[in-house]
Amino acid sequence: MENCIFCKIVNNELPGNKIYEDEDVLAFMDIQPINSGHLLIIPKKHAELISDVEDSVVAKMNVIAKKLNTALRKSGLKTEGVNFFLADGEAAGQEVSHVHLHIFPRYKNDGFGFRFPENYRNKPPASQLRIIAEKIKSVL
Amino acid sequence: MENCIFCKIVNNELPGNKIYEDEDVLAFMDIQPINSGHLLIIPKKHAELISDVEDSVVAKMNVIAKKLNTALRKSGLKTEGVNFFLADGEAAGQEVSHVHLHIFPRYKNDGFGFRFPENYRNKPPASQLRIIAEKIKSVL
Repeated sequence: MENCIFCKIVNNELPGNKIYEDEDVLAFMDIQPINSGHLLIIPKKHAELISDVEDSVVAKMNVIAKKLNTALRKSGLKTEGVNFFLADGEAAGQEVSHVHLHIFPRYKNDGFGFRFPENYRNKPPASQLRIIAEKIKSVL
Repeated sequence: MENCIFCKIVNNELPGNKIYEDEDVLAFMDIQPINSGHLLIIPKKHAELISDVEDSVVAKMNVIAKKLNTALRKSGLKTEGVNFFLADGEAAGQEVSHVHLHIFPRYKNDGFGFRFPENYRNKPPASQLRIIAEKIKSVL
C-alpha cells in the first residue's frame, strides 16, 4: 500500500535488515529495538488487522517466529527468553497499520515489563468469568 | 505433567472456563484477567517452551487466536483492540511452565501498556543493526 513503511521495506523502497523472506512473509530488524535483536515478522501483502490475513499466512508467521526464537537463543546475542507480541488495532497500541508480530529478545532483569491497569490482581468471581465466557462462545 | 495447573485444566482436574477445544489446543479464560475477556490458548500436550511444540500446533494456536480476536470484537464485550502475547522462558516473564498464548482484550485508555528499559527510544546506528542481523541469520 502507498505510504506504508512496511510495504516499502517489502518492495525494497526503504532499507531494512531482512532476516528471513519467503513468498508470504518477511522478518526484519526493528529499527527501534527494546533489546538487541528485536525483530518484526509481517505478511508481505498489506493488511491492517490480523482478521485480514489468511489463516495459512498467520500460521506461517508464527512458525517462523518459533524458528527465530531458537536462532536468537543460539546466536551470539545469547538471548535468555523471548516474547511474541502483536498489537491488533489502535486501542491495542498498534502504531503502524500493517500487521506486525514483534519478537522481543529478553534477558534477566532487562527492565522491560508491563504497566497494568489499577484493578489488575483483583480476581473476578467465578460466576462473572462464566458469564463472560458465554458471551465469547456465543459468537465464536 | 503432574503438578502443572494447565495440564489439570486440560484433564478436567481443575475447573476452567473453556472457550474452544480440539484434539491439540485448548482456549480458556484467564482467572486473573488484565481486562474482561482475557483468554489463554495452550497446546494440550505439555511443553514448557515453544521450541517443544510441533509446528502444526503452533500454527493452530495462532489461527484460533485470530478467530478469538474476531469473537471478542463481535461479542457483548465490545473489545476495541487485541494483543497476542507469549512469554517464552523465565527471563521473558513466563510464570507457568506450560506454553500459553495470552489474548488481551483492549479498550482505549485502559491503563495497560509497557514499561520500557531506560535506553529504549535510543535508535542504534544502522551499522550495529547490520552486525546483529548477521549474527541471527548465521544460526537460522
